[in-house]
Amino acid sequence: MDLNFREAERDDLERIVELIADDAVAAARTGSYGELHIKGFEAVTASPDNELVVVEADGEVIGVMQLTFIPGISRNGASRLLVEAVRVSSELRGQGIGRLLMEHAHERGRARGCALAQLTSDKQRSEAHRFYRSLGYEQSHEGFKLPL
Amino acid sequence: MDLNFREAERDDLERIVELIADDAVAAARTGSYGELHIKGFEAVTASPDNELVVVEADGEVIGVMQLTFIPGISRNGASRLLVEAVRVSSELRGQGIGRLLMEHAHERGRARGCALAQLTSDKQRSEAHRFYRSLGYEQSHEGFKLPL
Repeated sequence: MDLNFREAERDDLERIVELIADDAVAAARTGSYGELHIKGFEAVTASPDNELVVVEADGEVIGVMQLTFIPGISRNGASRLLVEAVRVSSELRGQGIGRLLMEHAHERGRARGCALAQLTSDKQRSEAHRFYRSLGYEQSHEGFKLPL
Repeated sequence: MDLNFREAERDDLERIVELIADDAVAAARTGSYGELHIKGFEAVTASPDNELVVVEADGEVIGVMQLTFIPGISRNGASRLLVEAVRVSSELRGQGIGRLLMEHAHERGRARGCALAQLTSDKQRSEAHRFYRSLGYEQSHEGFKLPL
């Protein structure tokens, strides 16, 4: 498969929302494509510290992820790469596309001077946890969320 | 105790590094105060999506945290507040200062339109986990890290 990684454009957004929602854990909370997603997209693209990346095969968007580059003081002033909302089209899972997506994320992080990649994954996603460990990630932290 | 929350300034940085390093888990990886922390500080203050907050008592900096405001597509286009590097001076722990620091974080998150706060905490920090649960956080995720 010939894959192409690029930054998401406005015309990709409906497909991106579909990919994010096509997931047992996230379906209920993603919502139907609409104004709120458009506002979110505009905020992501306006931020110098965020990139929304899509992967295409044969001109079709088959995966997405959001990268956030976070400067900091701890860990000797290191910047971190935060990876969120990683999705591959459900009919294409298990073919190594997620791995290529994550490798691309790490390349982007290194290009932005990040010394560390970090992500969280819902405790229900044990298959995803195996996947991240297989990429070399250490499952070292507990992740907490609070609605504001 | 009369507490004052404000954004960190360049003159606070040596004290901030001391606070971040005064911790069993982070001591080894924080490094001694130097050029790398200064570069990190400059990157944090240059970023519109990051705030380094200190808390003062009687003109002394006794606590610190870093806030990152992250726009996004998932969860109906919600922005998130990421809280990192939360520290209170070791001789003042257990007096509720951490709780006030977190409440200030949540206020800043709401002011920036964030619908969700999130953070990770090293699996070794079981006392911190109890603290975050006591603030209403759900311990719903596994946290992964990878050096780049």
